[in-house]
Amino acid sequence: MPLFIRACRGAAVERTPVWIMRQAGRYLPEYRALREKHDFLTACRTPELACAITLQPIERLGVDAAILFSDILIPAPGMGVPVRFDPGPRIDEPIRTVAAITRLRVSDPLEATGFVPAAVSLLKKELPPHVPLIGFAGAPFTVAAYLVEGGATKSFSNIKQLLYSDPRSTHELLAKLTDTMAAYLGAQIDAGADAVMLFDTWAGILAPEDYRAFARPYAARVLATVAAKARATGCDVPTIYYCGDAAALIAELPGIADVLGLDWRLPLHIARGRLGTSISLQGNLDPAVLLAPREVIRARTASMLTSLRNTELASVDPNRPGPARGHVFNLGHGITPDVPPDNARYLVDCVRELSSVRGQ
Amino acid sequence: MPLFIRACRGAAVERTPVWIMRQAGRYLPEYRALREKHDFLTACRTPELACAITLQPIERLGVDAAILFSDILIPAPGMGVPVRFDPGPRIDEPIRTVAAITRLRVSDPLEATGFVPAAVSLLKKELPPHVPLIGFAGAPFTVAAYLVEGGATKSFSNIKQLLYSDPRSTHELLAKLTDTMAAYLGAQIDAGADAVMLFDTWAGILAPEDYRAFARPYAARVLATVAAKARATGCDVPTIYYCGDAAALIAELPGIADVLGLDWRLPLHIARGRLGTSISLQGNLDPAVLLAPREVIRARTASMLTSLRNTELASVDPNRPGPARGHVFNLGHGITPDVPPDNARYLVDCVRELSSVRGQ
Repeated sequence: MPLFIRACRGAAVERTPVWIMRQAGRYLPEYRALREKHDFLTACRTPELACAITLQPIERLGVDAAILFSDILIPAPGMGVPVRFDPGPRIDEPIRTVAAITRLRVSDPLEATGFVPAAVSLLKKELPPHVPLIGFAGAPFTVAAYLVEGGATKSFSNIKQLLYSDPRSTHELLAKLTDTMAAYLGAQIDAGADAVMLFDTWAGILAPEDYRAFARPYAARVLATVAAKARATGCDVPTIYYCGDAAALIAELPGIADVLGLDWRLPLHIARGRLGTSISLQGNLDPAVLLAPREVIRARTASMLTSLRNTELASVDPNRPGPARGHVFNLGHGITPDVPPDNARYLVDCVRELSSVRGQ
Repeated sequence: MPLFIRACRGAAVERTPVWIMRQAGRYLPEYRALREKHDFLTACRTPELACAITLQPIERLGVDAAILFSDILIPAPGMGVPVRFDPGPRIDEPIRTVAAITRLRVSDPLEATGFVPAAVSLLKKELPPHVPLIGFAGAPFTVAAYLVEGGATKSFSNIKQLLYSDPRSTHELLAKLTDTMAAYLGAQIDAGADAVMLFDTWAGILAPEDYRAFARPYAARVLATVAAKARATGCDVPTIYYCGDAAALIAELPGIADVLGLDWRLPLHIARGRLGTSISLQGNLDPAVLLAPREVIRARTASMLTSLRNTELASVDPNRPGPARGHVFNLGHGITPDVPPDNARYLVDCVRELSSVRGQ
């Protein structure tokens, strides 16, 4: 079983697996070269292009998993919501009325977004067997926030006004997104995705009681549906839930997925202390560390690996290197366009070396 | 002693005091009318205008404290950094080099920003004695983030790159800001401010180890300097520290000030459980609740007051109304420009009624 899948399952590993959120993206010159010829949506919607972009970082970085090149708003047009990118997502007619919510369709993943499973199928032929492919979708609350806000925002006034003023319509919107995203991830599993990740990037803007009402149940339902589907087809497909700014929500998170992705604000050893060993953790170096000198990248990586390993090995020399169980190394957020690719490679090398049992 | 000051000190109160961050601002038509004649910086720098704007919400809302109308970047020009507002702050030449940091001056508060204590003096003549005046400044890390980024940002790449790559220069920058802000708040106390608040709006973008290194020590030094000055002059001036997105930092916060301001992400009853009764709490309704129908505003207010009161009154009927000790009601962030002023007034009325011992 590939290293990444074993770590997701909390099984024994010889070192900590590592991949990088947005590892296929704007910091890579080969990505920028390809994007000079094709716009973002064309790249997402053309299986050959999405496949080529997904593969770009695999050898260059030496990562232990691939993640499909796409965007969490790719299913929106199939629901009846056109999206532009310039470069962030823009929805010219945000979903802010009961009528607009009523008009939304649950999208058929093959009909509306068949290019996604097609890209997954292509990738499964191209990727080496030791590099599993992660499919992904946006969590219902986070996608709802984009649909209602119409794009990036600081205050999230519109989605919050909707959920405070009209919880019934908010639940209807979230239910449609839940059915859409469950089917969308199901189609990726059918096409061969080895793991699936649900991005709840904006979960952390909610107070815990609102998270409990409007975010967690829907994310959990997508993940449970997908896990049941994988079990029924005999596949071992771990589920990963990324929860942005989760420090105040940590009590709500046990049991939501096989793996919990966290950002840098909440140190993983503290998360481990509060969550126990029932869930694997993914993360969570601050992406800005990749703008620092190499000795800082190395020291931060070492300190995260050590502090997490120390949570489980009370009887062992605390400075002895080796992998912590149930940890997938990653950044705490997507890699930023200003990072030198060599620094990303250096980070991967550090994780491989510093977490390796044989590296002692 | 005014209700607000007693609550800051954790003393007995007959009801919970309430004020609203940015209560003097764009959601008020009388503010917008005044701003049609005067730009933002002129309004900040003219004592009569700053005084008039500060007073605008006092009677309209019925709040228990006034906060000086100003901006946390007002001391920047005195340090050698010009700032524009359009409407957010813009610094055309961000501070990103060792040379730029070396050139920064510690600002003399009377020479560079004498209009601020002048406005405080005017206000002390105008405000009724039961409405104390809060002076404020930006915390060193948060102001440093603005100076280095040059304005609003989502990633904070530049300030993080600086602190990871050149911690020595970052500490020099923070030390200059610390001396500037301590003197700036000291001048406000000399002019008659009844309490002082330090805004560390961006503290929560830092991982705890970076907060410990680059934010907390400097904020604590400003607050300790100011508290010592107040004691030496025989004034009882509570200190308030607002820490944005503090859920992952809560273990670092005991002892930092008399009052800790928190945003809505971390429920106050949970903060109280982790912090004990040694620090008063200020906050923390989500500002977006003020966009909701009145029954939602009332229910959210009641639930916050009750949950906080229940942390201290195990032997009392949990639904009995009354104020929790050491609580100043506020929003978790500044009121947004789209809030109807009547909703802000309604919130204040709800807090007064629902927290009142005699209201039973």
